[in-house]
Parts: sequence; structure tokens; C-alpha cells
Amino acid sequence: MEKTVAFDDLSLAMVAKDFLQHHVADNVEALNDLEPDEAAAVLTHLPQERAVEILDQPELDAVPEIVEALPADVGVRLLSGMAADRAADLFRRLSDPVRSELLGRLDTETRGSIEQLLAYPPNTAGSLMTTEFVSVPSSWTVRQTLDYIRVVERTRETIYAIFVLDPRTRRLLQSIPLRRLISAEPDAPILSAARPYPPITVTALTDRGEVARLFRKYDLLAVAVVDNVGHMLGIVTVDDAIDAMLEESTEEVQKFGGMEAIDEPYFDIRFGQMIRKRAGWLCVLFLSEMLTASAMQHFEVELEKAIVLTLFIPLIMSSGGNSGSQATSLLIRSLALRQLELWDWWRVALRELPTGIVLGGILGVIGVFRVALWQQLGLYDYGHYWVLVALTVGMTLVGIVTFGSLVGSMLPFVLQRFGFDPASASAPFVATLVDVTGLVIYFSVAVVILTGTLL
Amino acid sequence: MEKTVAFDDLSLAMVAKDFLQHHVADNVEALNDLEPDEAAAVLTHLPQERAVEILDQPELDAVPEIVEALPADVGVRLLSGMAADRAADLFRRLSDPVRSELLGRLDTETRGSIEQLLAYPPNTAGSLMTTEFVSVPSSWTVRQTLDYIRVVERTRETIYAIFVLDPRTRRLLQSIPLRRLISAEPDAPILSAARPYPPITVTALTDRGEVARLFRKYDLLAVAVVDNVGHMLGIVTVDDAIDAMLEESTEEVQKFGGMEAIDEPYFDIRFGQMIRKRAGWLCVLFLSEMLTASAMQHFEVELEKAIVLTLFIPLIMSSGGNSGSQATSLLIRSLALRQLELWDWWRVALRELPTGIVLGGILGVIGVFRVALWQQLGLYDYGHYWVLVALTVGMTLVGIVTFGSLVGSMLPFVLQRFGFDPASASAPFVATLVDVTGLVIYFSVAVVILTGTLL
Repeated sequence: MEKTVAFDDLSLAMVAKDFLQHHVADNVEALNDLEPDEAAAVLTHLPQERAVEILDQPELDAVPEIVEALPADVGVRLLSGMAADRAADLFRRLSDPVRSELLGRLDTETRGSIEQLLAYPPNTAGSLMTTEFVSVPSSWTVRQTLDYIRVVERTRETIYAIFVLDPRTRRLLQSIPLRRLISAEPDAPILSAARPYPPITVTALTDRGEVARLFRKYDLLAVAVVDNVGHMLGIVTVDDAIDAMLEESTEEVQKFGGMEAIDEPYFDIRFGQMIRKRAGWLCVLFLSEMLTASAMQHFEVELEKAIVLTLFIPLIMSSGGNSGSQATSLLIRSLALRQLELWDWWRVALRELPTGIVLGGILGVIGVFRVALWQQLGLYDYGHYWVLVALTVGMTLVGIVTFGSLVGSMLPFVLQRFGFDPASASAPFVATLVDVTGLVIYFSVAVVILTGTLL
Repeated sequence: MEKTVAFDDLSLAMVAKDFLQHHVADNVEALNDLEPDEAAAVLTHLPQERAVEILDQPELDAVPEIVEALPADVGVRLLSGMAADRAADLFRRLSDPVRSELLGRLDTETRGSIEQLLAYPPNTAGSLMTTEFVSVPSSWTVRQTLDYIRVVERTRETIYAIFVLDPRTRRLLQSIPLRRLISAEPDAPILSAARPYPPITVTALTDRGEVARLFRKYDLLAVAVVDNVGHMLGIVTVDDAIDAMLEESTEEVQKFGGMEAIDEPYFDIRFGQMIRKRAGWLCVLFLSEMLTASAMQHFEVELEKAIVLTLFIPLIMSSGGNSGSQATSLLIRSLALRQLELWDWWRVALRELPTGIVLGGILGVIGVFRVALWQQLGLYDYGHYWVLVALTVGMTLVGIVTFGSLVGSMLPFVLQRFGFDPASASAPFVATLVDVTGLVIYFSVAVVILTGTLL
């Protein structure tokens, strides 16, 4: 979109009219191309309902800046109309004094539910949920419920799941999909449309990964968040679960890449933040990798006698790291998707052992062949004992690839066992672990094979 | 679950009764713990509707084996009841002669729609879609539509999106969410409930990643798949979009880990398949990494003169690889989520350059400090010129981390530009690229700093 010089009232009215002809998600894209104060001006000219709907979209960038640029009374009006979960998200990102001022001007009920949502830790069902759901007492009929839904439709985030409460205790009894309701007998009691098993629920502290897993498993459109006596606190809807799933997988890839997770788009990350998120792990890995220098110092006698061995150090180390990162990528997904449980570790180890031996064998044969070829073609002279050198490289590859596969597959289990995210088993982390031991394996094999000849 | 010895008819009837008291997703979990022939026996004893619902769940393992174990007439009956998309998925995994036999015994209409779905390439909207959707002519009223939905509810995968067709051309005019319909005026024409912009549609060949992106952006529950003149071929529902999203992110992590993608759970992968999926990339990387041996042979004179330099080779190479894999993990997610476009590459490069220099500077300082510390504490003697050695290591780290960040961030763009999946920019691939150049940088810096002293 061309950068507009300034908006007068006429052009704002035209933009607003055009906005109503498009999907709210497209409005969001258009606003993302504007400066926050311009976006605020457009929002002010839109019907309140649409402006609220736009602010409710998680894809809208710079929401805090836009809200700060709104006239205070408009801001309060729009915030009161927003879904409670989105408003809470917004308040999380606002800073004082605007934050306190806006919160203070909201009506007591809205402020209460927003403050309650703000109290839940991030990445829990509580932080994802909204308080706008449809609930009816179990004494109602199907027809009463449908009539009620028609009335409250506009003010609820979803009406595709209806939550039936005990009229006396107000505890959740059932969750009924709208589709069962509209094909049910109108005069039958609402519970006649329910399924014969209890509803799927989560607590406010359920991890968002687990929430996402339940949506996948049960093909839900919304899940009830309940407290420990079964009172409903809110619901998580499928669109918020999808966003959570996506953030999870973004974080997983980034952690696996060896950095702290960053949710924002690339260009929204400030330079200092970028350095912090990346430098931490990089330094930890660097310090660990220093052990390779110590390992090599330990073998300095062998190194000086057989410099030819140094030529293959990068090749051998990287092969160990690569086989490790393969095994890790396979296992962190299987653990995240709950295809594997913690106690499956020994079955995985029994599987990775022969896998590693075969893969290492393949690379070992290629390695031996490479040394022999260069020697025979006269490309490089590995010395009188080149056969033994080739054998050392080949045997080491079998050992290190097997070791890499084992370490790479077991590390996610170890991390999970001690309460860490298995995805923290980053490719660089595995490579570092394997590098140090790899050197030890290499020189140990060399000592066995080459003592009396080169060493 | 304990392994059951054998099922007699009585216990089967009890299991079947128990199944009806639980959610279908829990039935699936229970069946996954049985042998295929036992699972088939349970399915035979369940009411057809529930058995079909179970077979419709993508989480059910070993479906082909279960179907093969069913009596042929039961198999045909259940298959006819299944959602067309799930039935097509099943046929993709069945093998002859069962496949041809079952397909031949289906009625013409069912067979036709399954064969049509089978024709779409994997990972496209066509392969995800189902043909069971609700469509009505635009000449109908809201009430007529609601009455119709009540009748067909059971036979449609979703009723939460209603597709309105031109009665003459049968082209798609609008997609109306059920929630708008039930709060609409009953006697008004159906289109009065529509929004003032055209429906979101995809073609049968739209990539599943793009389908998932549209679900996220527009918070859809179903999207219409249309041909090039606007006739509806089917719909993709949100639960299938979620499964597709998940497979995408699994493949992304696995590719980034340096292997071919595998969708099946870990223990369902046969040994030979596991070796094939992992050996390919491992060999390619190994062959590329052989260039490190060649690079080192090139510098053999320097190596022999200054063995002390070899001590830092693993440390330096891994730092380059780590910074590269960080940058790659950041960029492949941004590209996948469309936060970045292809032409943003130079802005990213301009950002990664200073980032790399700062990160490299941090590691460089630590590296220099490490050498100085060991020397001063007498832990290791790096020789007379240890200050110059430390300087070489420090300068190299700045160079290689900067280079790693640039290569790691640009590779996803290059791959996308040439039509490959940016996620193929695996951590090991980036590390390999950086390793070879890293050695060249190291020895070049060494030649500049150490010539006349050590070299």
C-alpha cells in the first residue's frame, strides 16, 4: 500500500466504507501497513462493532500503540466491547500510564474479568481462555436454549458449543455441540441432546500444549476451563488453540535451532532483544565446546606424532553431530505429539543402537573408500600407514554415529524427565555433547589401531 | 491394557457396550492397544454408526490391517458410511487384492467420489477435502435452509458453514456461518445472512500450508474447494486443517534436523525405512563435509608449523554452525508464517550482519580470555606467541559467526527462491556450509596474524 500523506475526514470515511466491504482479516492487513496514529483514525471512523472485531484479531500488529493513539473515551468504549481474552492480551502489552488509566475507566465487571485473566501465567489454558461462552441450566428445553442462543449470539465468542450447568450448584454437567441441538426434538430437555459421557475439560493451569492435544484428539471447537469443583471459568476456542499450536511449533523450531524462543515477527524484534535471545545459548555452547580444546590438549602427543589424524577431525565430529540432530528431531516431535511416553526410552535406545551402527557403517565404508581413493589416485599422501589411518577413520565413524544417535535420542527423554521442554535438546546442544566425546572416541580408536606404527 | 487371550461373543458385546459410554477418541485409543483382528472383531459388534465414526478418526492406527481383518460385507458397509476424505485416505494405504476388491464392491457414487479424491496429489487441498458439505440454492429462505440442515446433519462432516449456490449455474455465491443463520430472520432470503464480501475459497491444488494459513488468518471452520469456474468440489474442515498444520510442523522439525520427513509414530517406522530416511542426507552431508579434509590438506604446511592451531578447530567450526542454525531457525519460521517475503532478503541480511558481528565479538572476547587464562594459570602452554594465537582465535570467531549468521539467514531465502522448502535448510546443512569456509577463514586469519612468527 502506498504511504498516505495525511487522512482528512472525507478520505477516512471512504476508507471506513471500503473496510466494511472486506473481511475483518483483510482490514487487519490494511491497518498493519499504516502508522499506529493513522490506524487509530480509521478505527475511530468505523462502526464500533467492526472496530472491536478488528481489535479482537491476534494478527493486528502494534495494538498497544494504536490504542494509545485513540481518544481515551473511544479506547474505553472499544475495550469494553472486546472479547475478554483479547482485552487481557492487550493489557499485557500496554504500559503505564495508559494501562492504568484505561483499566481504571472500564466498568467494574469488565475490569474484574480482565484482571482475573491477567492473573493466569502465560502458556496456560487460563491465559488463552475467554469468558464469553453460552451456558444454560439443565432444566431448559432444546427450544429455550436455541431461542436464548439467538439472543446472545453477538456477544459470545462461539455458540457452537453450549455448556449445560446444574441449576443448583452451577457445576458443568455437559457440553453440547450446536449441531446436535438443532437436530434435536425442540420440546425435549436440553440434556437429551448430550452424549453419554462427561465433557472434556481443562483447568486454568493446563499447559497450552496439552490444550492443543485435546483439540486434536477430540476434534473440539471449544473446551471448557473449570475450577477444582467444576465451576466454569471460561472456554478456549479452536482459533485460539490453533494460534497456540503455532506458537508452540515456532518455539520448538527456534529452541531446536539453539536459541531462546521469540514469538514476534523477525522485524519486530529489537536489536538488543535479538542479541540477548541468541547470545545466551551461543555462549553456553561455546563454553561447553571449549572442552574440545581441552580434549585435544590431552591428546597432544598423539597429535604431534600423527598430524594426518587432524585432517579428519571436522569430518568425524560433524558426522556425530548430524546423526545426533536427526535422532533428536525425530524424538522431540514424537514426545510432543505424545506418540511416545517417558518409559519408552529403553525401547527407543534398543532401536537407535542398531540404526546408529548401520548408519555409521555406511559412512565408515564411504570414509575408508575416500582415503583409499585419494591415496591411490595420488591426490594426497596419507603416509606409509594409510591403510591403518583409513581403518581408524572408518571404525571411528561407526562408533561416533552410533554414539550420536544414542545421545540425540536419549537427551529429549532426559530433559522431559527433569521437567524441561524436550525441544531444548537443540541441534547445537547435541552436536556439542557429541563433539567432545567424539574426539575421545577418535583418539582412543587411533591409539588402539596405530600404536606401534604411527603412534 | 493387558493383552486379552481371546474374545468370545459375550465379552465382545460387553466391550461394545462399554465403548458407547465413551468418546470416540477414547475408543480409538483402546483399539490402538489391540491386535488388528481383535479390533476388527470389536468393530463388527458395534452399531454401524459408531464403527464408522471410529474408522473416520485419523488417530486410529493400523486401519488397513483392521479393514483387511473385517468380513468383506462388513468392510464394504462401513466404508460406504465413512467420510469420503477418510475413505480415500484409507484406500491410499490399502494394498491389493483387498483394495481392488473393496473398491469394486462399493456403490458407483461412493466409488466415484473416492476415486476422484485419490487423484489429487498429497499435501494439496484436494487430498484434505471431503465431499460431504451442506449446500443450498440462493433462492431458499433462512427457514428452509435450517429445516434442510436438520435433515442432513448426520450425513455432513460440518454444518457450521453453509454454502450458497447460484441455482442456475451452480456456482458458489456465499459461505454463511451457521451462527449468522440462526440469528437471522427466518423468512428472509438466505443471502440476507451473508457478509458483504465474497467467500474465501481454495483450489484443489492449493498447498496444505497455504490452506492452514487461511484458516488461521480468517478463523475459518471450513473452506470451500472450487474448480476454475467456481463450482464446489468439496470442503476442508478445521480438524483436518489442524492435522495438516501438525504434519507440516513435524516435517519442518525433521527436515531442519537433517532427515527426510517421516509422518508415522516412531515405532511404526520400519527399520529399513528408518535407515533410508536418515542415510540419504547423512551421506550427502558426509560427502560435502569431506571438503573440510581437503581444506585442511591445503593448509598442511601451516598445520605442521603450528599444531597449536588445531586445538581450536572444533571450537571455531561449531561456533559458526551454531550461529548459522540459530539464524536459520528464526528465518524458516518467519517464511513459513509469511511474516517475511522473498524480497525481504536484503533487509534481513542488513540485520544479520551487525547481529553476527556483535555475537561474534562476544564469543571472540570469551575466546581470547580463555587462552589468556589457561596460559597465565599455567594450565596449558600455547607457546611463545600465545598472544598472537589468542588474537587469531578471537578475530576468526568474529568472522565465522558473522559468516554463519549470514549464510544461515540467506539459505532459506535461496531455497524458497528456487522452489524448495525453506525448512530443508537443515541445521546440519548450514553447519556443513559454514565448516568448510570456517577453516578457510581460520587459516587465512592465521596467515595474516602469524606469518613471520609461528608461520
